[in-house]
Amino acid sequence: MNISNTPSPPYFAVIFTSKLNEDAPDYEALSNQMVELVKQQSGFLGFESAREELGITVSYWKDEASILNWSTNLEHQEAQRLGKEKFYKSYAIRICKVERSYSFQNQ
Amino acid sequence: MNISNTPSPPYFAVIFTSKLNEDAPDYEALSNQMVELVKQQSGFLGFESAREELGITVSYWKDEASILNWSTNLEHQEAQRLGKEKFYKSYAIRICKVERSYSFQNQ
Repeated sequence: MNISNTPSPPYFAVIFTSKLNEDAPDYEALSNQMVELVKQQSGFLGFESAREELGITVSYWKDEASILNWSTNLEHQEAQRLGKEKFYKSYAIRICKVERSYSFQNQ
Repeated sequence: MNISNTPSPPYFAVIFTSKLNEDAPDYEALSNQMVELVKQQSGFLGFESAREELGITVSYWKDEASILNWSTNLEHQEAQRLGKEKFYKSYAIRICKVERSYSFQNQ
């Protein structure tokens, strides 16, 4: 998992923060499936993910139309339904416009 | 660590994604110190954090002036200097306007 190599702003970010149920056995398989699917979406620029007590996944998008398109993808909608039914204790989704960015790379 | 209880949009988010050097011995102490300091800042609304291979910390802010103010805080600037010198292999900072949000809570 690397830091996403995103273009110059403006572009868009979806911050997905979640807590899993204590028992979420098939979560990882579904999550991996969604990663493969999201990579094929039009306007997808990259994603970054980490989970400890809290899971944070940030996906980057060219524009809001691409985000809307992904949110209505049928396989993704089925995964969202399963997520609510079986996996997530709670989550928040925040849709953002990235206005500025900086990066640092140690030499 | 809980999902931040942020107000209705619009507000702002700073997505800080990082990779640590293999050897970063005092990182956690400095990180905890910055958490205590950021909580006292004007306009600070909350933060969410997780680290695996990648570390992701998202902080939420009332407005861009509050973010600018935090970025120029002297203790924070010293921590940034130390971070670049000792702790971070690489990082990206993305400053965003949160435009929409949704949340889910399992009953």
